[in-house]
Amino acid sequence: MSMDCTYRLRIPHRVGQLAQVATRIGELGGVIGDVQTIAIARLEAIREITVELADKEHADRLAVVLGELPGVKVVWYHDRAFIAHDGGKLQMGIRRPITTNQEVRDVYTPGVARVSSAIHEYPQLASKFTMIGRSIAICTNGSRVLGLGDIGPVAAMPVMEGKAMFYSQLVNVTAVPILIDTRDVDEFVQTVVRIAPGFGGIHLEDIATPGCFEIERRLIEALPQPVMHDDVHGTAVVTLAALIAACRQADIRLDQAVVGQIGLGAAGFGIATLIHDAGVRRVLAADPNEVAQRHATARGIEVADLDTLMREADVVVATSGHPGLITPEMVRPGQVIFALTNPVPEIEPDEALAAGAAFAADGTSINNVLGYPGIFKGALLAGASEINLEMKRAAAWALAGLTVSSELIPEVLDRKVHEVVAEAVRQAAVDSGVADPDRIVPEF
Amino acid sequence: MSMDCTYRLRIPHRVGQLAQVATRIGELGGVIGDVQTIAIARLEAIREITVELADKEHADRLAVVLGELPGVKVVWYHDRAFIAHDGGKLQMGIRRPITTNQEVRDVYTPGVARVSSAIHEYPQLASKFTMIGRSIAICTNGSRVLGLGDIGPVAAMPVMEGKAMFYSQLVNVTAVPILIDTRDVDEFVQTVVRIAPGFGGIHLEDIATPGCFEIERRLIEALPQPVMHDDVHGTAVVTLAALIAACRQADIRLDQAVVGQIGLGAAGFGIATLIHDAGVRRVLAADPNEVAQRHATARGIEVADLDTLMREADVVVATSGHPGLITPEMVRPGQVIFALTNPVPEIEPDEALAAGAAFAADGTSINNVLGYPGIFKGALLAGASEINLEMKRAAAWALAGLTVSSELIPEVLDRKVHEVVAEAVRQAAVDSGVADPDRIVPEF
Repeated sequence: MSMDCTYRLRIPHRVGQLAQVATRIGELGGVIGDVQTIAIARLEAIREITVELADKEHADRLAVVLGELPGVKVVWYHDRAFIAHDGGKLQMGIRRPITTNQEVRDVYTPGVARVSSAIHEYPQLASKFTMIGRSIAICTNGSRVLGLGDIGPVAAMPVMEGKAMFYSQLVNVTAVPILIDTRDVDEFVQTVVRIAPGFGGIHLEDIATPGCFEIERRLIEALPQPVMHDDVHGTAVVTLAALIAACRQADIRLDQAVVGQIGLGAAGFGIATLIHDAGVRRVLAADPNEVAQRHATARGIEVADLDTLMREADVVVATSGHPGLITPEMVRPGQVIFALTNPVPEIEPDEALAAGAAFAADGTSINNVLGYPGIFKGALLAGASEINLEMKRAAAWALAGLTVSSELIPEVLDRKVHEVVAEAVRQAAVDSGVADPDRIVPEF
Repeated sequence: MSMDCTYRLRIPHRVGQLAQVATRIGELGGVIGDVQTIAIARLEAIREITVELADKEHADRLAVVLGELPGVKVVWYHDRAFIAHDGGKLQMGIRRPITTNQEVRDVYTPGVARVSSAIHEYPQLASKFTMIGRSIAICTNGSRVLGLGDIGPVAAMPVMEGKAMFYSQLVNVTAVPILIDTRDVDEFVQTVVRIAPGFGGIHLEDIATPGCFEIERRLIEALPQPVMHDDVHGTAVVTLAALIAACRQADIRLDQAVVGQIGLGAAGFGIATLIHDAGVRRVLAADPNEVAQRHATARGIEVADLDTLMREADVVVATSGHPGLITPEMVRPGQVIFALTNPVPEIEPDEALAAGAAFAADGTSINNVLGYPGIFKGALLAGASEINLEMKRAAAWALAGLTVSSELIPEVLDRKVHEVVAEAVRQAAVDSGVADPDRIVPEF
């Protein structure tokens, strides 16, 4: 695991001093990020330099080394992530301040009783006069969190809060982390079904295979609102978008291509099925797990061994969890290769390019945050009963359409990007008949 | 049920015109609230007048009558509550904006993985680096909502959002409405237990008796964090505070008094037991329900019939749900009477005073919002494992101490009031040994 550490340094304010510091950081293997000038005095500058390092020990070593430079003083250094998480990342706020007695009467007793009565009589008013129509529950049991594995629901909370932050910032959707303390599929499903009425959509997150597939399937059956496991479908949408962009750059027609998926975990299975269902002629998949193989076959995906796959696929996506799995000898000249395992990919992009790949990328090029906010926002806008293939495909093509020529994906923090995705998904919901025509769309 | 309706009127801008409008409103039985001047031209003023009326029909009639006044035009009129509820009342926000790539790295991958790992290794860090330590789940099944009865969880949402708004505005606590779609006690308890790890406290709300008592008891047993049914204990705290203030005004020593509680529903049971446990010499209770009688007796409360209670009690609190239950003949001169049933009390305060009561109040004088925000905030600050008698008593005395002489309760929207309550509760948690000494208090 890497860490981003910020060092506050007092540095002599003379030509060449910052270069000396930067050089020392590079010599120690640190990658410099932001450099901020906090204050400049006549003889001295205070700067905060953020450095990507291997771990805590590495960070400590750099502090010692920097402190040994003539005139340099390390005021403090810290792991940025912990500062950014202090007290948590979310807070519930109110849409209109309450400052007068009249406002209390409007939002609370006696006014609230009239609104509750109206909803009791006409339940469809709930999407207009409550937060439900703007809200998503992000549900996890923490059984498979990032690359960390089964760390449980509480330790997964920072990830859920991170997901919810992007909902808030990018599409103005209220997302609530729901930590579900069970590993049992039945219990998980029951719990979500019971709390579901409070939310317009159910976002499943970081749930281990194979349970995640059954949980998602059963919740889709049981609930009237859209349910989506983001690790499966959100990642698949963003990967498909990036593949479309990559194929455009490599001059390959994706729909005519043979696509090979290495690894059929949650993400891999989602990618393979979305690519298949989106109309790609032939999809191969390699995974030693026989259950995964059976599921893939049932969805029209051909199971192959790794060597066959690497030989036959024009486009390769790897989510195997095995760093270095693809050797340069296995690369077929002209291939598009996405080696997505984090933090160390199946093959480094430059190695793949050196071996003749037409295009190569690793997991840092794919950002899941591009998918789920717009997808769920579009579903909420439509009052959709599900997130179907048409909506996922629409999201992927919208993303690909927003990507500038030299990139794989558009800018993650650009709210316009998410607006376009949401509108594409909303329209696809309407066109595919899963939208609610009587929906009273809330003001987001 | 009453409604607050705002009328936008064009009125000739001449002396006496507003008086004419106000007179007409009074003649029709409307009670005038806020009057806002929107614009004044040479000949005409535009004003918004808020009027408390009986119902929709009453509001329509007033609009017609006002429109018949010479020169007056009704531009529009509407029920304020629905406007105030448009799109719901809450939204999840972020504590620090994400604007740069570095900030994405801090709050999301890769930074978030370091925080999750740290919490996995040292679970006590969750209260510092997640929102959990600042968060409350407001859990309901909507089985007894205000005076509306069993309207179900979705129609109860506006009430839950209202509760959560005050948490946000008054004590900066993040409260999340959790609608639980079951009437079964086991299922309710199971569901809350499974989602509880995501919250620092569990606020139960609007759950019907007798289920609410068992739900609360079992959740208190099962969970490490504080659990409180607000309708029982929050209301009791605020009522006790108001009683203390009323007795001060009536020159009665509450601890020496005989207190009679009429009605042993959730609120009544909570009030009777808190008053009893807080050290009042003798508490009588009247309720036809035999189960409620047994529970009360088990808690040291004497069961009495209504006449005996009215004869013997120095202080009477009624939460019977029966408007007009107390006749003037039943009032004993010098009594303090709280007739709290909404919207029509057991006896109107002026009737009670005319019959010789030393002090009389109805439900409009007691506002539950004074209790729960400070109580839960104090519990969160202490890392308390429960909300015990000492904490409730501390909250009531803090409220009574903040009440100016002619009032029963302090100003609801004054944040300082809630801060004082929170601090009193926190201190009581520490003193009574239910605080967590190793608590890492999050920055609220």
